Amino acid sequence: MSGTITIALDAMGGDRAPEVVIRGADLALERHPDAQFLVFGAQERIAPLVAQLPRVAKVATLHHTSEMVQNDDKPSQALRAGRNTSMRLAIEAVAEGRADGVVSAGNTGALMAIAKFALKTLPGIDRPAIATFFPTLRGETVMLDLGANVECDAENLVQFALMGDAFARSVLGIVEPTVGLLNVGSEDLKGNDAVRGAAARLRGGLIPLRFHGFVEGDDIGAGTVDVIVTDGFTGNVALKTAEGTARLFTHALRTSFEHSPMAKIGALFARGALRKFRERLDPRRYNGAMFLGLRGIAVKSHGGTDAFGFANAIGVAIDMKVNGFLEKIRADLTRINVPMPAPQPAAL
Amino acid sequence: MSGTITIALDAMGGDRAPEVVIRGADLALERHPDAQFLVFGAQERIAPLVAQLPRVAKVATLHHTSEMVQNDDKPSQALRAGRNTSMRLAIEAVAEGRADGVVSAGNTGALMAIAKFALKTLPGIDRPAIATFFPTLRGETVMLDLGANVECDAENLVQFALMGDAFARSVLGIVEPTVGLLNVGSEDLKGNDAVRGAAARLRGGLIPLRFHGFVEGDDIGAGTVDVIVTDGFTGNVALKTAEGTARLFTHALRTSFEHSPMAKIGALFARGALRKFRERLDPRRYNGAMFLGLRGIAVKSHGGTDAFGFANAIGVAIDMKVNGFLEKIRADLTRINVPMPAPQPAAL
Repeated sequence: MSGTITIALDAMGGDRAPEVVIRGADLALERHPDAQFLVFGAQERIAPLVAQLPRVAKVATLHHTSEMVQNDDKPSQALRAGRNTSMRLAIEAVAEGRADGVVSAGNTGALMAIAKFALKTLPGIDRPAIATFFPTLRGETVMLDLGANVECDAENLVQFALMGDAFARSVLGIVEPTVGLLNVGSEDLKGNDAVRGAAARLRGGLIPLRFHGFVEGDDIGAGTVDVIVTDGFTGNVALKTAEGTARLFTHALRTSFEHSPMAKIGALFARGALRKFRERLDPRRYNGAMFLGLRGIAVKSHGGTDAFGFANAIGVAIDMKVNGFLEKIRADLTRINVPMPAPQPAAL
Repeated sequence: MSGTITIALDAMGGDRAPEVVIRGADLALERHPDAQFLVFGAQERIAPLVAQLPRVAKVATLHHTSEMVQNDDKPSQALRAGRNTSMRLAIEAVAEGRADGVVSAGNTGALMAIAKFALKTLPGIDRPAIATFFPTLRGETVMLDLGANVECDAENLVQFALMGDAFARSVLGIVEPTVGLLNVGSEDLKGNDAVRGAAARLRGGLIPLRFHGFVEGDDIGAGTVDVIVTDGFTGNVALKTAEGTARLFTHALRTSFEHSPMAKIGALFARGALRKFRERLDPRRYNGAMFLGLRGIAVKSHGGTDAFGFANAIGVAIDMKVNGFLEKIRADLTRINVPMPAPQPAAL
């Protein structure tokens, strides 16, 4: 890694902003001491926080704005209205080359709309997608789209496969990642037109990636492939179903251990084991959803995360820059120039 | 409960048939001593098993057939070819009124195709759906469809809502179940045409059920509503994602407890607590997917389950009969006679 990396922070996005953002930036400096921050938000709230954290104070430049995107703003509203929101200014810092990436814990739809408008999509990409890591039995899997595109056709899914592949090769350092299409069965005939069409294209040999074929919902946790591709509706439901199931398990485990004196003694002895268990599946470790397909690096943090989780989201943006994700995906897209046949009008 | 209940069993379906089926029938008699069984399958394999279990031997009538549906048979193939498969004969026993319900652990697609053909759909229902219970923080939630219908329109989803509502009222005994539509957000504008159209209809006041509105993936585990309605693609992915996440958690917990001598001692003390935890979320307890929307009771057991799981699937079929599910859903469907407006041809 040569030189410093500058990350633009939307200090006003998220449930506990700006505290979590500033403390998260401080924590991120432990793993990434070379990072610098452009911090956008309300000076009177941010400055006292920064003053308490000398490590951040040294590398943060504060840009005051009193405007911010609200959680219930519609994407179109956020895009048209606020030219001076902390989110907009942070994204524009990336668009104008003053920052290498942007991290926000604010309104997801607004962040995607503004990022798409200000950063633009990469040539060859019709729609950006949201990706994240999932913990699996074997390590980690990248899944996309998680909600940017509720309806997708075969071509969108093929583009997501390329984006996920480039991400896994660059950021995860996997030489030949396996890519699977999420479906309701593994046989060729299963699923809807979009997944069948995408599979046919990915099997055709013209797309240079290692296509595993169809995978099912339980392959996410099993870690069957490195990259799982799906439409934003299914991906969003799968992500949240996994989160809900994790919460149910954690709750059931806790109540079991609180049930009897014997169990409480057991929990004392097993303290280290239970901590390891929690750490391994800690959702904060997987915080940071990557917006892929844009001409810049944008990462969305969970709105309810803490400083540790926000620091991980910053880490994701830094990893994307350090590992040259944008260069890899650009190279892939120029190499592959196999447009889908134009749709033929139906005979009338 | 008056009189006995007769369940037709496809003894040859599932990974460990017929052993699991016959042992499952034996276990089911513990909770349902009045049940009787019509058992369809290979006599030379079934008779020795039945002979070892005097409780089952007393109430089982064996119907020999050497034909069976294979796991890789296509639904259409299974439907056309095998008039004498154990699955087909078991379903026909219901169609002909000799049995009150059928349970099979065989090929899901074949079971649905044959059940639809032999039992027919209820008047007012276009397509049957597959439903199951999910464990939640609050108890249990019923979700449908889990894979019978990969693509659904608004009218299908409204019918699923009615079916799920009738199921929750009859089998779960909930007076006014809450029904939610699975979506990627709770706002009115979220989602695709099908979920928005279904929500508009369910909100319209003409469908007599308690519509909660949209729910998200994490509402499944949270138990936000009693019934969750979705298309078969999303439902199948959600079901399997939850299963995969559960497996990941169980595995991570086990490896944590095996990690150190201290943890092993802890596990000994917490043995009872861990058993309670496992029992509560034991997938075998939730075994038994109900085919709703047919003029008869059909339950699909997981192919890989054991006798305990299969007994639960039998229990589901018996519960549906005892609680008059078919009568309740029929009454609902005749009361509601609000067809969707016929689609208008597009202007050319």
